[in-house]
Amino acid sequence: MSLITLLEYASVLVFAITGALVASRAQLDLVGFAFIACLTALGGGTLRDLLLDRNPIFWIANPTHLAVGVTAAMVVFFTAHLLESRYRALLWLDSVALAVAVAAGTGVAISLDQSAVVVVLMGMITGCMGGLMRDVVVGEVPLVLQQGELYVTAAFAGAATAVIIRSILGDDALALFAGACMTWILRAGSLYFGWHLPVYKSRPPRV
Amino acid sequence: MSLITLLEYASVLVFAITGALVASRAQLDLVGFAFIACLTALGGGTLRDLLLDRNPIFWIANPTHLAVGVTAAMVVFFTAHLLESRYRALLWLDSVALAVAVAAGTGVAISLDQSAVVVVLMGMITGCMGGLMRDVVVGEVPLVLQQGELYVTAAFAGAATAVIIRSILGDDALALFAGACMTWILRAGSLYFGWHLPVYKSRPPRV
Amino acid sequence: MSLITLLEYASVLVFAITGALVASRAQLDLVGFAFIACLTALGGGTLRDLLLDRNPIFWIANPTHLAVGVTAAMVVFFTAHLLESRYRALLWLDSVALAVAVAAGTGVAISLDQSAVVVVLMGMITGCMGGLMRDVVVGEVPLVLQQGELYVTAAFAGAATAVIIRSILGDDALALFAGACMTWILRAGSLYFGWHLPVYKSRPPRV
Repeated sequence: MSLITLLEYASVLVFAITGALVASRAQLDLVGFAFIACLTALGGGTLRDLLLDRNPIFWIANPTHLAVGVTAAMVVFFTAHLLESRYRALLWLDSVALAVAVAAGTGVAISLDQSAVVVVLMGMITGCMGGLMRDVVVGEVPLVLQQGELYVTAAFAGAATAVIIRSILGDDALALFAGACMTWILRAGSLYFGWHLPVYKSRPPRV
Repeated sequence: MSLITLLEYASVLVFAITGALVASRAQLDLVGFAFIACLTALGGGTLRDLLLDRNPIFWIANPTHLAVGVTAAMVVFFTAHLLESRYRALLWLDSVALAVAVAAGTGVAISLDQSAVVVVLMGMITGCMGGLMRDVVVGEVPLVLQQGELYVTAAFAGAATAVIIRSILGDDALALFAGACMTWILRAGSLYFGWHLPVYKSRPPRV
Repeated sequence: MSLITLLEYASVLVFAITGALVASRAQLDLVGFAFIACLTALGGGTLRDLLLDRNPIFWIANPTHLAVGVTAAMVVFFTAHLLESRYRALLWLDSVALAVAVAAGTGVAISLDQSAVVVVLMGMITGCMGGLMRDVVVGEVPLVLQQGELYVTAAFAGAATAVIIRSILGDDALALFAGACMTWILRAGSLYFGWHLPVYKSRPPRV
């Protein structure tokens, strides 16, 4: 199994769990869990494949991804009540899924010989759009847009790190690993320490 | 006219009416009615065609679908006030549209020689995503995600029924008909008798 | 630079500004500004290119569009507080962006030799869907669906005007210019004078 395939499975698994956790907050049934889990897990990569005209879409080429998503949804359906705080679990799993998905999306775009700008964007889209679809469909405020948190920024920094390290060292695996780490560290730092960029205020203090 | 074409027109017509009913609840003008009607009627099939890289998209190949959607929107604009309860009408028409669209999507995927898993998914996507787009755009809670109702489940059961019957009897028309019936019966039973699967509860009772 | 390219840049620029203004209302950080700005600026054209199977997508073929969007977001981030009413600015800029994007989308579809119906629709999709995505993602009521305002109607009228004038005079540039003017005049008239079509009322007065 190639590195990119492995990353894709990992990202599908963890994002599916976050989708199922959101479904548990909306009190859906088992099929609803599977639906939101697959939308979250496959949404970002599907958009990436559509934009890059990659044919067939990754989960049509290999429906194992669907099986992973559905299985994750089932496990969460029967075990989510064991979690003390489903929302904390959701935030932290989402941070891991983001990091892995950014690396997977970056890797796919690199393997298709896209330009650096497009590679970075595909990393961001693969990482952010699945979670965005999950939140929009369920009617929650997208995590992507939480005020004063690093999210898109973390995805951007991770994808850019991967591109830069690859252009210096020429090693794909190392570059993707570094990109995932960078994304996760920034996102986790934002969750744990409250790291953030300055947000827009309608009347910023004079400098 | 082939069976699939007939199913597609029927699904476009009924979904367009539901879209127009939602537009009437949002008090839009005639063009807004046509916009939501076409989004609802064509959204699911468009996503299916994009995912399967079917070219051109069905309503670009044959814009009659658009004419059907726009006409339905106009009729609803001038007659919706005759309905006693627009919301009840919306729910029941939506159940018919779901059943027909699941059959149409399943039929299209079969005609493209997709695997059984992908066929079932395309049936579900064609059936559910148009209504989901309608509800998300208008800002209502998606019918797809109503608690304690069969919706995605009905679509799944119908598409799976069609695939199973086709593999046993080898008759496409019969398989699609059975799939539509299965979807509608489950959805209607959910609306009328309150059929549902167990939903997730944060602390399920001990068994 | 061709006329269509110029229209595309103009529409990306103005829509990006509206996206950044919406981001400022949601108090996002700089990367969030760039994200919403690019989603708004590129969303409608991306959907058009996906539907028409245009390959590659316009901003993948030429990432300068992204640079325009990101630059606009940055400028707005640092200057939006200078505006007296960001919401008024947003409405009026959005009207300009709509007019330019309708013309751009119409022009692209014409250059791909689509039928008149599809050309009009692509003008409407390019004009309306980016702003719709912006509003849905941020959780605001879509401008597209504001009651008692011309929006989709203005896009429709502009695209239809372009198609009609082109079929009479055979001049693309003139047709697109007329289409943009028609869209903007209707939209601006709606904003300034309150022009609107009759909206649906549950009990319309007897005639």
